[in-house]
This record gives sequence, C-alpha cells and structure tokens, in this order.
Amino acid sequence: MSKSIVPANIEQLKPYVAGKTIAEVVEAYQPEQISKLASNENRLGHSSSVEKAIQEAVKVIHDYPDPLSKKLRKAISESIGLLPENIIVGSGSESLLGILCKTFFQNKQNIITADVTFIGMYVQAQIRGVKIKKIPLTKDYRFDIKAMVNAIDEHTRMLYIANPNNPTGTYITKEEFEWLISKVPEDVLIIMDEAYYEFAHQVNNYPDVLSYKQNNVITLRTFSKGYGLAGFRVGYAIAKKSLIDYMLKTKLAFEPGGLGQAAALAAFQDREFLEQSREVVETGKQELYSFFDEQKVKYIPSISNFVMMIFDSEEEAIFFTQKMLEEGVILRRINAFGLPNCIRVTIGLKKEMEHFRRSFLKVLNQA
Amino acid sequence: MSKSIVPANIEQLKPYVAGKTIAEVVEAYQPEQISKLASNENRLGHSSSVEKAIQEAVKVIHDYPDPLSKKLRKAISESIGLLPENIIVGSGSESLLGILCKTFFQNKQNIITADVTFIGMYVQAQIRGVKIKKIPLTKDYRFDIKAMVNAIDEHTRMLYIANPNNPTGTYITKEEFEWLISKVPEDVLIIMDEAYYEFAHQVNNYPDVLSYKQNNVITLRTFSKGYGLAGFRVGYAIAKKSLIDYMLKTKLAFEPGGLGQAAALAAFQDREFLEQSREVVETGKQELYSFFDEQKVKYIPSISNFVMMIFDSEEEAIFFTQKMLEEGVILRRINAFGLPNCIRVTIGLKKEMEHFRRSFLKVLNQA
Repeated sequence: MSKSIVPANIEQLKPYVAGKTIAEVVEAYQPEQISKLASNENRLGHSSSVEKAIQEAVKVIHDYPDPLSKKLRKAISESIGLLPENIIVGSGSESLLGILCKTFFQNKQNIITADVTFIGMYVQAQIRGVKIKKIPLTKDYRFDIKAMVNAIDEHTRMLYIANPNNPTGTYITKEEFEWLISKVPEDVLIIMDEAYYEFAHQVNNYPDVLSYKQNNVITLRTFSKGYGLAGFRVGYAIAKKSLIDYMLKTKLAFEPGGLGQAAALAAFQDREFLEQSREVVETGKQELYSFFDEQKVKYIPSISNFVMMIFDSEEEAIFFTQKMLEEGVILRRINAFGLPNCIRVTIGLKKEMEHFRRSFLKVLNQA
Repeated sequence: MSKSIVPANIEQLKPYVAGKTIAEVVEAYQPEQISKLASNENRLGHSSSVEKAIQEAVKVIHDYPDPLSKKLRKAISESIGLLPENIIVGSGSESLLGILCKTFFQNKQNIITADVTFIGMYVQAQIRGVKIKKIPLTKDYRFDIKAMVNAIDEHTRMLYIANPNNPTGTYITKEEFEWLISKVPEDVLIIMDEAYYEFAHQVNNYPDVLSYKQNNVITLRTFSKGYGLAGFRVGYAIAKKSLIDYMLKTKLAFEPGGLGQAAALAAFQDREFLEQSREVVETGKQELYSFFDEQKVKYIPSISNFVMMIFDSEEEAIFFTQKMLEEGVILRRINAFGLPNCIRVTIGLKKEMEHFRRSFLKVLNQA
C-alpha cells in the first residue's frame, strides 16, 4: 500500500509515548523506594467506598452499562444546581475533548489555545483535522487571553483554556474570565477544562464558571485527579442542554464502562476523601515551595496538584530527570508541551515528597 | 446560536436510544420473571476469575492504565500466533470502529457495507462524514459480497462485513471470503467484524480470516459477547503492524480502563467458561428452532448467540415485542437496523428460554 493510506493530519500525529512504569524503573535501577510523581494522579489513592461499589456493579458486568450514566448525572447535577440534561459523562476528559472535536467542527474551522497546555487537546484537534492556533503564554506562564481574543477570526469555532493550566499550574482569574466572556462572540465555544477543579476551586479569585450560565461555555471536569479514579476513565462536561444533546450524539453509546460509573458515583459522595486529598496537596506544596526557595530552584506557584520547575537549559532538565529516575523518583519532562527546560512534579504523600527532596539534594551534588 | 453550530452529518445523527432497563420493566409491568434477551449479552455471566483480577487491579486504579495494554496484547497475540504489534486494544468494538473511521478516511472517500448490519458502524462513519454505500442483503439475509465488490469505486476506502452478521446471524463462508480477498484491491481495507467469533468459529465453513495473512484485512473481536464483559468495554483489532501503528495514533491514550484490561486478561485465560457459554447457546438455539418450527414462526438460522424472527408486518412485530415486554421478556426490535418486521432474541439460560416460550404462547393466544 502506498504512504497515502491515511490523511496527512494522521500521518503527522505522534503516537502516545508512555513514561516508564514502576516495574520498569525497578528493573532498570533497583532503587530503594519508588515515588511516581509524573502523571498528576492522586497519590492518596481513592475513596474506600469505591471497592464496595464495584463489588456490587461487577455482578452485572456481562450486561452493557447505562449509556446515559443516569445515576451519576443526577448526582452531579444536584450538587451543582443544574439538570442531568446539562451533563454528559464520557471516558475521561480525553474522550470529551474528542467528542467536542467530532461534534462541533466544520472543515476549515480553527481552535485557539495556548502554545503550552494539555497535549490531549492538540491531539484530538489534529485527529479531526482542525487548525490549532497556538498563542504563546505570557511571560509569567499564563494564558494570554487578550492575544487569544485577538486571534479570533471568522473560522474560529472554539477557545480552549485549561484552568488551572497543565503543565504550568497557573490560572485565569474571575476578572479575566468575565472579560473573556464579554469579548468572545456567542457562536464561539469557550471550553474551560477544569480537570484539577477539586484542588483549585477554593483559591481566591478562581472563577466560578458555572455561575455565569453562559450559553457558549462548556466546562470539563474529571474523576481522574481529585477523586483518584484515573484508571476508570470517567469525566464529564457541563453546558446548556442543546450543546449536551449534540455531544450525546457523538459519544460512544456505551462510554464510560459500568464499573467506572459505579466507582465515580461512590467517590463523588465521599467528600472526606476529597478533603484529605486537598490537605495532602496543600501541605506538600508549601513544603516544596520552601525547599525550592532554599535551594534557589525556579518554579511556578501552582493552584493544582503539581508544580513546574524551570531549569536553565534542556540539558539540565534531561540530566535531572534521568538522575531522579535512577533514585526511584519518576518525574515528567514537559518538552512535549513545548517547554524543554521544565519538569513537572506531582505533589505526593509526605514520604514521597521526602524521597523527592532527599534525591534532589543527592542529584544536586552530582551535577 | 444558529442551527449551523454543528455540521450536517452531526445534525442528522440520531442519539442512541437505549432499551428499557430491568428496573424500568419491573416498575412498569411487575412481571413475575425478567429475561433480558435484547442485547446479545452473555446470559451465563462472566468468568469467576474476573472478580479476583479486579480486586487486585483496583488497588492501583488511581493511576492511569497501561496505554498499550501490553499484558493483554501479549496473551492475545500468543494465542493466535501473531505478535503484540499486530493487535490494538480499545474500548469495545464501537471504539475500534471509530478509530478506523478517524484514521483511514480522507474526505470524499466511502465505505461499503450491507443495508442491514451493526448500527455502530453506520454511526461512526457518519460522525466522520464518510459516505456509506449500503448494499441490500441477499434474499436469504446474507451479505451480498458480489454486489459489494461491484460497488467499489475510486473513492472506496473500506468494506465492512460483520461475520456473523448482526442482527441476522448469517455469515460469509470460507469460499466467499477467499473470493472476496481475490477481488478487492489491496488499497481497500476489508473490515471483518467478528464480535461473535467465540460462538461462530467452530462452524463448518466459517472462514479462518487470520490464516490468510492479508495485508488489507482488519479483524475486530470483543470481550463483550462470548467473554461476558460488555460492561467493561474492551475489544481488539488484529492486522498487519503498519495498520495497527496508525490506529495506535488515534486511539485515546488511556483506553481501555485498567479494570477492563485486567478483567479481559483473566477472562481470556478461562477457556472453560467460554465452552460453557457455547453449550448454553447451542442447546438453547436448537430448542428454540424446534419451538419455532412447531409454532410455524419464520426465523433465520444463526451461528451466533441470537436468532432473528421474521413477522408478516411491522404492526405484528410491535405488538409482539410490547406484549412480551409486559411478560418480562425484553426483546430487540430491529427496525433501526432496517428490518421493521423482525425481532432479535438473544439465546439465554434454560430458565430464560422457557420464560420466552411460555410467554410466547401466551401472547400468541392474545393476538
């Protein structure tokens, strides 16, 4: 077969490259301890109510799951004061981004976002063949919403903002959001990806996006981060009914799976676990900031469960990531996000952060 | 916002309409027994090894799952004598059909299939904006492969054949498959959807598609039917490496979920459960045929775990389905597949099939 078997946008896609697994790190370096701080997962685990929920749900797992996630949508909608019809549940934010791209784009339309943000958005847009206008972050690593609004043209269908942003941990404020919705035409959709909402929403000046009831705003949230259910693949979008109705047409009929629906419902009702997760992250973050300040490491203050470190060069970032890996600390270089000098560290448990700091000092002495 | 917010192909899509759930049927009609024979699920349940596998896997469910399903691909590839690189695992056949459409179609290309086959294929093609050439089934409800080959034009990218077909239960034979691969140009992909493979492959003259090692054939299988894991959403495709590599680029990074991968691996290794499932279906089918013959009900002999009944009119089919529902027997009308006179019944357990026959006779007396 000739090379032309797939369109150019697919040919140019790079397949997802996973980081090293714990097993692979153990095999390669035999470190005394492993701290997986690479993927912004919840290091505290997940609500203990999940086990019981799936024990029950697995009994009928030979049957197809509820295509409309009715119980979960009801619980979510009640907690945010909206209707189930304002919510769609899918296989994680990644799937919802795919659904957005499949549903709303005509050919030749474009999406505007930052040049450093969640890679999943770039991938889904490219799969759909959508032109991505990547606007550089501001000098303080924040979404440049003025430049984004200026970039809107007649073909713009969507703006995408991760709030807080991944990998920078920065956010757009209430005032910025208000300015944004006043400037964006109502036929342009504003996607607010709040994957880290559970860690961020108590922050002063973090916008309460839903309270504005904007017709053209779609908010994404997930059970993968605060709720600690990344392995289940459950996320949701919140928007006005007519937009949700369109998205329901293009979601896979049976996403997400039955155990995911049951686990998410159980986790959603356990506010205590969520509170504990927040405390772990807040404490860990403050201790890390102090450590970085002492060690004169550049970093960006974050309202999320991860912090971005800034090194002087790509070489330094590569060296540091590799040496930390050999110590059993798995970090994420964010070269693929467009910041080759930077490294992202997930805030883990106390023992994991101690492991991080101990290893950091050891590596520093080797440099 | 104007009506044009989505493209015409999305506007025209109908959202998935789920059948009544068991709870809804209980509430509406209070039948003494419920037999869910509507969705071709495995009525025997699933391998008992699944529970143990997920108890283990849930411990790390706060982490992302293996994006490459390495353990599962290894197990599958070894059992069919190919390499893991020849396999992609996704969130059920439905997701894999979506991946096929996202990956391989250029604008203006078309897909050729039957006018009565798995609806999921139509939906995924329409979401991608692909033209679907629907070729009428033969008079005996089989794929008309000659007409399909004749329909190939310069824009044809793909042929889709469900083997056995859903909802008819018919199949293309070894000889037909050999004729097909000799006629289809090698730059046209042949998708063989073998969702019901585990019930079908021992049938005389059922083609052993993999043995031909055709460069342009992609075979789809699933854990939703024979293995009884519909609620987990796990399916796979088998093809030459270069095709799989393209598909890996467009699959969601983290599909399928972690428990799905673990459950599928456990189920795959339990051949005994699969054998029991086959026996349930074979016995149930023979008894059903005898019953239909006695009652002079028209039906199509099936190599799958369901049988299609043919009524004289749509009205009769509607009446029968509704009356059976009131008795607690949930069946599937297949008007959406394009056969308004027909009803599909999943082969269930002995007690379910007795319930079916008992209710059938009762409804017959009401007609």
